[in-house]
Amino acid sequence: MVSNKPSTARPIVLTGDRPTGPLHLGHYIGSLVSRVQLQDEASQFLLLADTQAMTDNVGRHQKVTENVVEVALDYLAVGIDPEKSTIFIQSQVTELYELSMHLLNLVTVSRLERNPTIKEEIRLRGFERDIPAGFLTYPVSQAADISAFKATLVPVGNDQLPMIEQTNELVRRFNNVVGKEVLVECKEVLSETGRLPGIDGKAKMSKSLGNAIALGASPAEIKQAVQRMYTDPNHLRVDDPGQVEGNVVFAFLDAFEPDRVALEELKQHYRRGGLGDSVLKRRLEGHLQELLEPIRTRREQWQQDRGEVLAILRRGTERARAAAAQTVSEVRGALGLNYF
Amino acid sequence: MVSNKPSTARPIVLTGDRPTGPLHLGHYIGSLVSRVQLQDEASQFLLLADTQAMTDNVGRHQKVTENVVEVALDYLAVGIDPEKSTIFIQSQVTELYELSMHLLNLVTVSRLERNPTIKEEIRLRGFERDIPAGFLTYPVSQAADISAFKATLVPVGNDQLPMIEQTNELVRRFNNVVGKEVLVECKEVLSETGRLPGIDGKAKMSKSLGNAIALGASPAEIKQAVQRMYTDPNHLRVDDPGQVEGNVVFAFLDAFEPDRVALEELKQHYRRGGLGDSVLKRRLEGHLQELLEPIRTRREQWQQDRGEVLAILRRGTERARAAAAQTVSEVRGALGLNYF
Repeated sequence: MVSNKPSTARPIVLTGDRPTGPLHLGHYIGSLVSRVQLQDEASQFLLLADTQAMTDNVGRHQKVTENVVEVALDYLAVGIDPEKSTIFIQSQVTELYELSMHLLNLVTVSRLERNPTIKEEIRLRGFERDIPAGFLTYPVSQAADISAFKATLVPVGNDQLPMIEQTNELVRRFNNVVGKEVLVECKEVLSETGRLPGIDGKAKMSKSLGNAIALGASPAEIKQAVQRMYTDPNHLRVDDPGQVEGNVVFAFLDAFEPDRVALEELKQHYRRGGLGDSVLKRRLEGHLQELLEPIRTRREQWQQDRGEVLAILRRGTERARAAAAQTVSEVRGALGLNYF
Repeated sequence: MVSNKPSTARPIVLTGDRPTGPLHLGHYIGSLVSRVQLQDEASQFLLLADTQAMTDNVGRHQKVTENVVEVALDYLAVGIDPEKSTIFIQSQVTELYELSMHLLNLVTVSRLERNPTIKEEIRLRGFERDIPAGFLTYPVSQAADISAFKATLVPVGNDQLPMIEQTNELVRRFNNVVGKEVLVECKEVLSETGRLPGIDGKAKMSKSLGNAIALGASPAEIKQAVQRMYTDPNHLRVDDPGQVEGNVVFAFLDAFEPDRVALEELKQHYRRGGLGDSVLKRRLEGHLQELLEPIRTRREQWQQDRGEVLAILRRGTERARAAAAQTVSEVRGALGLNYF
């Protein structure tokens, strides 16, 4: 018997990064590892979000555009396969500008102002009343990024959930206005791993805070970063009992120690007393050196061949444009904007 | 002696209409007459602003898209020559979406909210706090329309002056951010003719108010409209003194009476008393019939050949895209968005 049921469609994933600096171990744990897995299970679009990064980098556009290739190098170095994943530059997919502008009519200013993520980011940036219009409206642009590819899955952190909600609101509103199902709602994929702290113990690893370990870090940089890692300030002598919680070295071991049984024993030993920070740090450094060595090597190899990296970005951008153009053509049709 | 001074450049004009209905005598007097003149003196881009009209016609997009050809018919009927003027459809010039999005980062939300034209339009439409984001930001989109063509002259009414100001602010801000003169400031061309009132005496002639005379009006419709015209309600008997001010028939004669001396005498006679409304109306009707007869005929001819009208719009849109693409390419270059 032949089934009429369509086979379960391969999910379409849209994700990416604002190219404001090279990526680091926080990105590796938080998103890159799962992207390398996802590329075998889904149609994955990886967005180098230069246009979005421009919304809060006016006058610093060079910082954005110069980092586009840096982030692409990181993707390739960790094992993103450009034949499996579509790596593309947002600004070059002009269909996204068009879809953004159409969606902009479907949301009110006050709805955008109520977006908790935007509220928090406005606070962090100290914009207050001087919010650039492009910044307030970037969730609409994000909704365009997602819906242009009819993405069904969007990996996000908890703090980005309001963006998914906003996207699906716009999708429903559009379909409702045109009276047919043109755009597709998406679902979030919440990261299962916790966030990697900075080496200084701050909640967020960030290049601009100077507490990050870049994916392209040299062996000496890795060594130095591990040495600088914040542990337990009350663990003064090896024999003292030490605290595991809030201890950056353990947070890193949680992320990078393959032997989970040994890790549990180390934690108990540390809590009891008698386990020195330097032993732990040597162990962690060993893991990080091992992890980052091949990544650094591949990164350096790709760096020698920037022409090929650009060619990869160009091909990815062309693939992305073809997909987005199909959606925008349907959007135009639904709005009656197909005159010719 | 050969002068090194460049010859005065031909001005570039950007103007157009929101296609929400066929045009009427108010448009003829307010803008079409001067466009027919301008096309011999300037590079004139005529925008059928469907995207802009969408910003306050969500859910009524058909009303907009169906009127694009109607307005084009009006242009052709009044003597806009598509070889001299570039008539194009805004939504099809995708470069305008891109430029709008780049400019959106250069203006704050509060600056947009302070725009007096937008304030007034928000009041008129009863949007209050439910302002669609696309509506609040449409002055940015207008700035993109103007600057994409490096327009130097923009015909506007007094109420549109804040739009020119906003455009030039964005142009200066962009050039300042990128550190070179990429975009060009424009100057307003204020209409010399007053606004034609509706036949009911309301300040504004408008199809939706039912007080307009369409350019394609039939002889019977013209006759009926003139008969319905509001005169002086206190001018009950022919012998009574009549008032010229606020008298719609005189407002129309001011616009359409070629014999200015005779018009002055008619006004004096009316004020004195002894001149009946019907005499004036017959005179005015004669002028309007004479004016609109060839326009209606040409409109009907073009209407028989909608294929050719669409071909004209397609060619105009291609010309407009080429011009806008040149500017957008410079904008991308200035922002470093030229990766390939």
